[in-house]
Amino acid sequence: MDVWGNQFTIEKWQRLVTEFLEGGNSAPIININPTDPREFDAIFLGGGAAGRFGAAYCRALGGRVLIIDRWPFLGGSCPHQACVPHHLFSDCAAQLMLERTFSGKLWFQNLNDKIVSIKSIVELFRIGRVGPHAVMNYQSKEMLGLEFVLNAEAKIINAHSVQVGDLKFHAKNLVLALGARPAVSTLPGAQLKGIFNYQSLVETLDYEPGNTVVVVGGGKTAIEYGCFFNATGRRTIIVARHQVMPILKDAESRSYTLKMMVEQGMEFLENAELINIQGDELGKVQAVSIQTPEGVMKVDSDFVFMALGERANTELVSQTIYPDLDDKGFIKVNHRMQTSIPGIYAVGDVTGPPMEMFKARKEGVCAAKNIMGKVSEYKATDYPDFMHTHYEVSWLGLGEEEARQRYANVKIMKLPPENPNGLDVGLPAGDRMMLYLMMKPRMSGFQKLIIDGDTRKILGAFHIGCGAKDGFQYLNYLVKRGLTIDELADMDELFISPSYFIQLCRLRAGDINFKDL
Amino acid sequence: MDVWGNQFTIEKWQRLVTEFLEGGNSAPIININPTDPREFDAIFLGGGAAGRFGAAYCRALGGRVLIIDRWPFLGGSCPHQACVPHHLFSDCAAQLMLERTFSGKLWFQNLNDKIVSIKSIVELFRIGRVGPHAVMNYQSKEMLGLEFVLNAEAKIINAHSVQVGDLKFHAKNLVLALGARPAVSTLPGAQLKGIFNYQSLVETLDYEPGNTVVVVGGGKTAIEYGCFFNATGRRTIIVARHQVMPILKDAESRSYTLKMMVEQGMEFLENAELINIQGDELGKVQAVSIQTPEGVMKVDSDFVFMALGERANTELVSQTIYPDLDDKGFIKVNHRMQTSIPGIYAVGDVTGPPMEMFKARKEGVCAAKNIMGKVSEYKATDYPDFMHTHYEVSWLGLGEEEARQRYANVKIMKLPPENPNGLDVGLPAGDRMMLYLMMKPRMSGFQKLIIDGDTRKILGAFHIGCGAKDGFQYLNYLVKRGLTIDELADMDELFISPSYFIQLCRLRAGDINFKDL
Repeated sequence: MDVWGNQFTIEKWQRLVTEFLEGGNSAPIININPTDPREFDAIFLGGGAAGRFGAAYCRALGGRVLIIDRWPFLGGSCPHQACVPHHLFSDCAAQLMLERTFSGKLWFQNLNDKIVSIKSIVELFRIGRVGPHAVMNYQSKEMLGLEFVLNAEAKIINAHSVQVGDLKFHAKNLVLALGARPAVSTLPGAQLKGIFNYQSLVETLDYEPGNTVVVVGGGKTAIEYGCFFNATGRRTIIVARHQVMPILKDAESRSYTLKMMVEQGMEFLENAELINIQGDELGKVQAVSIQTPEGVMKVDSDFVFMALGERANTELVSQTIYPDLDDKGFIKVNHRMQTSIPGIYAVGDVTGPPMEMFKARKEGVCAAKNIMGKVSEYKATDYPDFMHTHYEVSWLGLGEEEARQRYANVKIMKLPPENPNGLDVGLPAGDRMMLYLMMKPRMSGFQKLIIDGDTRKILGAFHIGCGAKDGFQYLNYLVKRGLTIDELADMDELFISPSYFIQLCRLRAGDINFKDL
Repeated sequence: MDVWGNQFTIEKWQRLVTEFLEGGNSAPIININPTDPREFDAIFLGGGAAGRFGAAYCRALGGRVLIIDRWPFLGGSCPHQACVPHHLFSDCAAQLMLERTFSGKLWFQNLNDKIVSIKSIVELFRIGRVGPHAVMNYQSKEMLGLEFVLNAEAKIINAHSVQVGDLKFHAKNLVLALGARPAVSTLPGAQLKGIFNYQSLVETLDYEPGNTVVVVGGGKTAIEYGCFFNATGRRTIIVARHQVMPILKDAESRSYTLKMMVEQGMEFLENAELINIQGDELGKVQAVSIQTPEGVMKVDSDFVFMALGERANTELVSQTIYPDLDDKGFIKVNHRMQTSIPGIYAVGDVTGPPMEMFKARKEGVCAAKNIMGKVSEYKATDYPDFMHTHYEVSWLGLGEEEARQRYANVKIMKLPPENPNGLDVGLPAGDRMMLYLMMKPRMSGFQKLIIDGDTRKILGAFHIGCGAKDGFQYLNYLVKRGLTIDELADMDELFISPSYFIQLCRLRAGDINFKDL
C-alpha cells in the first residue's frame, strides 16, 4: 500500500491502523519518496522511541532516512503495550484509591469490597491505543517528513542492505532500534493460560481475573501493575527475590511509599521466589507455591503477573550480522552508539537499561548526529526518575543515606516536618491531593530535599504525591548545573504547588548556617 | 495564654486552634522569649504569606522579630479562606468532571443529572483547614523560632510602637502585612443572604444552594469558583463586565480552555453587568437581573457569587499613621518595600496586585533584607501563572499574538498538532488525563510552546491539562535565563510527562531553520 503523496488525516490513520491491527491487511504501508534520488543515510530498523526520534533528527540534519517497522504505526511498544497502558492503569489506580478512601462520603459511591473489572479496562485500552498511533503516523509523515515502510518484517542482508518482501533497500548505515520484550519465566507451567506479562496482558487477556493476584518481581513494572491490580479490589501479593523497589534510594521516601501501599492492602513477600505453578485441567493456572523465608506458601490464583525484566530483540541480527552482545544479550555500543560492526548503530532498549523513554530517544539522536558527521557521545547518567504506585513517585540525585556518606554537612527539608505526630498531619498537599489533605491527611504525600549545607547545592529531591513529575525534568537539569537553595528560594512558586521546595528553601535561605526544616 | 517554652505537637495545635476558632478562647496566644534582651528589629503586623515569610527571613538573617495576627494561627487568609479552599474546590471540579464524563462506564457511578452538595464540601473544608494551620504554627514556633502574638487585635501607636490589649511592643521597624479582602458590591441587595464571595462562602454558607448559580466577574476567582459550582451539577452563569479570562493571553489556549468549559455546560455573558438583585420576604436573594448586549435577562437563583477583586486591609493604619495609598487604596511602596513613612514597610496583598503567594512571600523577604541592612529590591515581573478551570491551566511568557508582534520569526510547537480533525485526537495526555485520552480524546488537553526561530529561545509556554503547573515554576526560571529549544531537547523527559515540550523540541532541534510542529 503506497501512501506517498496522500495526505491522511489523523482520523483516516486511525481507521487504517485499526484495520491493519485487526489483521484485515497484511500489505506493507510504504511511504517512500520516489523522486528523491539520494541514497539513504540510514535505515532505522524499528520505529519506536529510539528509531523514530533518531530518524527525525537525521532528517532535521538534512539526511535521508528510512524507517522499517513490523507494526502498522510508528512509536513502537510504548503506546501499544508499555508506557501508555501502564499510565492508564496507574491513573485508574490513583482514581480508585481516591474513590475507595472516600467511599460513601460527599458524592462518592461506595466501592468498599467491590471488585472492578480488569478486563474491561484492558479492552478499553485496546481500542483507545489506536488514537496515539494515528497521531504519531500523522506527525511522522506530514510534519516530520519521514519515509517509512510499516506493517512489514525486514530481513537484514548485510551491513548496508535490508529486504522487505520483494523490496530491497540500501543505506550508508543501519540503525538497530529493535527494542526489547518482557523476559519469560522458565518455570514449568509458565506457559499456562493466566500467566501474564505487561505485553501479553494487553494482547491476550480474555477473562475476568479472580480475586487474588500474584505479581512476581520487585521493580517498577511489578509495583506499577501490582498497585493497579490492588486498586481494582483484588488481594495482591508481590513476590520479590530480594527487596522491593530497590530503585528508590532514599529510605524515608521508600518507607512512606511502602507504608501507603500496605495501607491499601498490598502484601509483600521479600526474599521470596515462585517455585511452582499449578494448572487446572483446562490448562489455566489455579495456584502457585512461593518459597518465603518463613517456608512455602501456596496461593490460589488464576492470574499471575510476571515482571522479570527485559530481553533484547536480537533475533533479526543474530542470523546475518553478528554485533557483539553483552552478557545479558543486549547489543554492545560505544558512546557514539556504534556497534562492533562498522556502519551499524544500535539505540534504545536493545542496548540495555535504563529502559526509559528519554534514553531511547536520546540514543537515537546521538546515532543520528554521528551518522550525519557530527561527532556526538551519549550515556544516560544523572537522570531524574519516577515510578507509579497509587501515587506518582518522582526523584532525582542522591538519597539521604548516600548523601551523608559523600558529604559532611547534609541538610534536609521535608514535609510533613519531623514532628511528634509522625506523618498524621495535613501537609504537604497540592493539586489532586486536596481531598486527602482534608479528610485523610497522612495520605496527602511526602516530599524531601537533600542539600549540601556547605555549598548550599541541592543533592537530591524526592516526591510522593501527584503533579511533581513534570517539574522533576526541569529541576534535574538545574540540579545538575549546581542549583542552590538560594536560587530555588528566588523562584516564583505557583501555590499550591505540588512540590514545596521553593518555599521551604526560602524559609531558610537567609541563614548562612541554615538548619534542617 | 503564654506558650513560650511549651513544645506543642501539631496535634495539640490542632485542638487549640479549633477551640480558639470556635470562640472558646479570646485570650492572645503569646510566644515571646522573655530572656532575649534584644529590641525587635521588626514587628510584622499580619502573619500571612508576606508576614510569616518576611519574619522567618529576618530571623534567618539574625534579627529579632515579632508577628502579631488577629487569627489564632499563622499563614493568613490563604489556608483559611483563599488558596486552600479554592484548591479543594478545584480538585472537586476536576474529579467531578471526570466522573460525569465517564458516568456509567467502567466502574464509574452514574452522576448524570445528579446535584452534588456544595454545603457539605464547604463544611468539610471548615474542619479540615485546621490541619494546615496547626502545621504552620508548629513549623513557625518549633522550627523557625518565630516569636508571635496570635488571636489578638493590634493597635498601631506610632511608627515604632504597637499595642495589644495591655501589652505594648516596640520595634525598630514596622512591617504592614495586613492582606486584602474581597471587594463588596454596592448594588442594592448585595447584603442579602445568598450573596457570597470567596470569604463569606466558607465562613457563612448554611444552606444547600439551589440549581442555578450566578457568578459575577471574569477573572481567576470567578472562573475557578464558577467551574466548581458547575461541576456540582448546577447551571452556572458567568457575568463578566468585559471578556472573561483576560489574563490568559494566548488566543488558541484561551479558546481551548473556554471550549472545554462550554462543553461542561458553563454559560458566559460577556460585556454584561448585574443591575438588580431581588430578595424574598426572608431577606434571601431569589433573582438577579443582568444587562447583556442583547437586553436584560432575569435569572432566578438563591446563590450569587461575587468575584469583584480585592481591597486592601488598611483600617489599622488609617487611624494613626498615614502611609500614602494608591488610587485603588493599596499601600504605596518602593522597590525596597518602604512606605512613605520611614521605618514602616508594607508587603503582600496590602500593596496591591498580583495577589499571588510568591509575590507576597518575596515582598516579605525583600523587606526583611532591607530591615537587616542588606539593600534589596523586588518587583514581581516575568512570573509564571496559573488558573484552575476543571483543568489546571498554566502559562509563562508571551502568547503567540504578542510574540508575533515583537518577533519576526515565531515558531510554534503544540499538541494536538494542527490537523484536519481539529482537536479530536488522542494527544497530548499525561498523568490523570489517561482516561480522557482513551475515551474522550478531545478532553485530554492542549499545550503550546512559542519560540523565537532566530535565537531559538522559548518565548512562552501554555498548558491545559493536569500536572504541569509545578514544572512551570522551574521552566519559567529557565526561560527567563534564555532557555533554547536545543537545551530543552537535551533534557531527560519523564515519559508520559504532562508537558511534551522536551520531546517536541527534540524532534526539531537538529534543524537550523526548524519549522512549526
